[in-house]
Amino acid sequence: MKNPEMSSETLRRPYDPRSPGMLPFRDHVPRFLDGSDTPRAYLERCLETIAKLEPAVKAFAATNFDGARAAADASTARYHAGRPASAVDGMPVGIKDLYETMDMPTQANSPVFAGWHSGRDAAHVMALRRGGAAIVAKTTTTEFGMAAPPPTRNPFDTSRTAGGSSSGTAAAVGAAMLPAASGSQARGSIVRPAGYCGNYAIKPTYGALNRGGGLGMSPTHGVLGIHAGTLRDMWETAYFIANTIGGDANQPGLLGEAAAPEARKPARIIRVDTLGWDVTDEAAKDAFEAFLRGLGAEVEIVGRADDPRIEALEVALRTIPEFLFPMLSYDMRWPAWTYRDGGRERMSATLLNYLEKHEDIRPADYRAAMEKRGRLRALFAEVRAISPFCIAPAQPGVAPVGMGIGDPVYGDVSSVLGSPAIVLPLLAIDGLPFAVQAMGQPHDDYALCAAARWIVERTLHTA
Amino acid sequence: MKNPEMSSETLRRPYDPRSPGMLPFRDHVPRFLDGSDTPRAYLERCLETIAKLEPAVKAFAATNFDGARAAADASTARYHAGRPASAVDGMPVGIKDLYETMDMPTQANSPVFAGWHSGRDAAHVMALRRGGAAIVAKTTTTEFGMAAPPPTRNPFDTSRTAGGSSSGTAAAVGAAMLPAASGSQARGSIVRPAGYCGNYAIKPTYGALNRGGGLGMSPTHGVLGIHAGTLRDMWETAYFIANTIGGDANQPGLLGEAAAPEARKPARIIRVDTLGWDVTDEAAKDAFEAFLRGLGAEVEIVGRADDPRIEALEVALRTIPEFLFPMLSYDMRWPAWTYRDGGRERMSATLLNYLEKHEDIRPADYRAAMEKRGRLRALFAEVRAISPFCIAPAQPGVAPVGMGIGDPVYGDVSSVLGSPAIVLPLLAIDGLPFAVQAMGQPHDDYALCAAARWIVERTLHTA
Repeated sequence: MKNPEMSSETLRRPYDPRSPGMLPFRDHVPRFLDGSDTPRAYLERCLETIAKLEPAVKAFAATNFDGARAAADASTARYHAGRPASAVDGMPVGIKDLYETMDMPTQANSPVFAGWHSGRDAAHVMALRRGGAAIVAKTTTTEFGMAAPPPTRNPFDTSRTAGGSSSGTAAAVGAAMLPAASGSQARGSIVRPAGYCGNYAIKPTYGALNRGGGLGMSPTHGVLGIHAGTLRDMWETAYFIANTIGGDANQPGLLGEAAAPEARKPARIIRVDTLGWDVTDEAAKDAFEAFLRGLGAEVEIVGRADDPRIEALEVALRTIPEFLFPMLSYDMRWPAWTYRDGGRERMSATLLNYLEKHEDIRPADYRAAMEKRGRLRALFAEVRAISPFCIAPAQPGVAPVGMGIGDPVYGDVSSVLGSPAIVLPLLAIDGLPFAVQAMGQPHDDYALCAAARWIVERTLHTA
Repeated sequence: MKNPEMSSETLRRPYDPRSPGMLPFRDHVPRFLDGSDTPRAYLERCLETIAKLEPAVKAFAATNFDGARAAADASTARYHAGRPASAVDGMPVGIKDLYETMDMPTQANSPVFAGWHSGRDAAHVMALRRGGAAIVAKTTTTEFGMAAPPPTRNPFDTSRTAGGSSSGTAAAVGAAMLPAASGSQARGSIVRPAGYCGNYAIKPTYGALNRGGGLGMSPTHGVLGIHAGTLRDMWETAYFIANTIGGDANQPGLLGEAAAPEARKPARIIRVDTLGWDVTDEAAKDAFEAFLRGLGAEVEIVGRADDPRIEALEVALRTIPEFLFPMLSYDMRWPAWTYRDGGRERMSATLLNYLEKHEDIRPADYRAAMEKRGRLRALFAEVRAISPFCIAPAQPGVAPVGMGIGDPVYGDVSSVLGSPAIVLPLLAIDGLPFAVQAMGQPHDDYALCAAARWIVERTLHTA
């Protein structure tokens, strides 16, 4: 197999966090209202970028450009009349292909669902469509969000992965093909690809965004999130969805305001080292430490040496694999077993092997895992008194070369805590994106976004 | 329209709780093992009853008799070898047509899903099939479990309703066409039809049985349950499902033992009067009071006059409609809105009107409802100190004549409390079933079943 680095087709464009070339959408609204720009023209610019980059990036599993154009035209008329339907009116968006769409197939990168049309929209798709968004494409994912990778490539270096499982979403936003797209995560499927591809992204509090209409196999920790070119688009899209169709059952849904928060300087930030640190490469460690030194000039950063509660949390975080893997295995049995019953040949060897390895997991194992997780969550709640905000890398290094989708380890923390994380693509290593993540306490998403905004402004607009 | 009472086709057979003609399955296992009976022969007896009664009862939306026969034959071989696969091996079962089956369509009594084959089994169907059960039929339901009724008739008087939404399940078990079938409930869709049709049925603790693979629209309170001809079959089928595929995500699943509990006399039982009492007819009130007098000879029955905590609970239970209806409306928006977007003509006027009436419900309304519900749950937790067991009617009267599916009010209590209820078809009024329900605290399902068994033995085997 030829080395992809050597391929004459490899596209590279250096990532500069200060001038990321990312698409903002909400910032254009004044121009839509005064007629100097239109949602249709905005969409056409996206489609031009798509025409240019998609053949190399391969972010899409299906597209509906005609449908998106019709939606953008209807939106254009609403702005001309001075009455946009919502914060997302006219916004070109992508939908992770684990989620159903009325107008495009939903295939989950699996032969089981090849060509499948559900005839309905997933909850968040329905919300976006009602708000006037232009649904442009289904974005690629790994097989059921967990196994066989899609062909998607990193938009900053197509010899590298875009990460997974929100592969196409992260690549499309990173390539500036779309201003926003949906992702989902049960381990690190938002945090990691967002970091690899230079996206802003929110993995909200567990249950904050309605997951209805998805083919995901990880209900225990699975969350829907939003990737975008800016913090503002990220927040306002997520909030619109939550305010339209709510969160998961028996959850309060995403709390906060419709408008993205202003920057707010935290009193203190907790540095949390997790299992991810053990596998983080030296360049990434250096970049993160330098970033923290810069931040530390303006805000107090506290770590395990400063408070025994942080140390206790870090020790407990090292136990995550003991309960996360049993929970993931337990979740998968349905529907994975019934797909297997319908024909083993339709599933990847990775998935089949994983199922076999965990065939005997029982409800008692799950209950034991819930108990261990509960102890970790209690320790996390205790550090809130030190600060509601934590900081950590989003990835153990830049996106790896090849077809592997990278290590999800840095996503595990917020997944098992059920707490929000916001990916901030503030650093570059050798011209490739390297992100940090701000983590908060459950339901503190809005305050976390305000703190994240302060970190962004502090990092990008000074120094 | 001619009066159905007058129809020459009306079938009636008087209900006698002491000799209900219900099918037990687990009691046959010794005969399967010694070869004096076989699961295939058991199935054929069910199919004979089906041939006789189904034309009038109309309990099934689809059948797969050949598939059931093949499963029963395989089961017969396992019993002959002395190695049954599970507690449900060879059991003929029905599946509520809100839940997916690999071999039969899933149609939810809606044109939206007419002829739809999902190609997979719902979680509980997968579990039953793996355990060797013979999946005989899909049992009718109301439109998406909430609106247009199916043609199903009450097996004790076909001029009357079988109730809803678990209509076909209750009718099939009541007609002794099947020993067990699945039901589900978000208001009273297990409790009411079970009562109308003389079934034993468990509406377990919220989340106790995996709901994966369903078309239900009420995730906030929706639960899967089991209807059966005996308490033993009911419990052991439910437990088998839970132990195979677990409960809903982040729930411990059904707790208890695999074997149905022995009868256990409670120290005390709380009589809880709810909004249902206001609409209960005199014959039903008389029957329930007489039942309680009989029970009161052997166990202390306490009510609102005996303890202010019970009175506080009863007052609070009257507020259920204030938060239950907003929650039901909130739940329905997805997927009901997307089905409506795909063609209004595919939905009943009832459903369309309901959607329109609640179009403006917002996440803030849902959060307010959660808060009110939380106060009620706290009051319910307080009465646990008086007794873990409550008793109430399961229905405000016998099954009504006509196509209406009756009043779900008595099911609301356990639905909103997330607590278990077990329907006990112990009484008859004018030859029609009239049931009581034993209610317990969340996760006390097994102890509740033991207390219920004592109530059954006390009521049916004495006096």
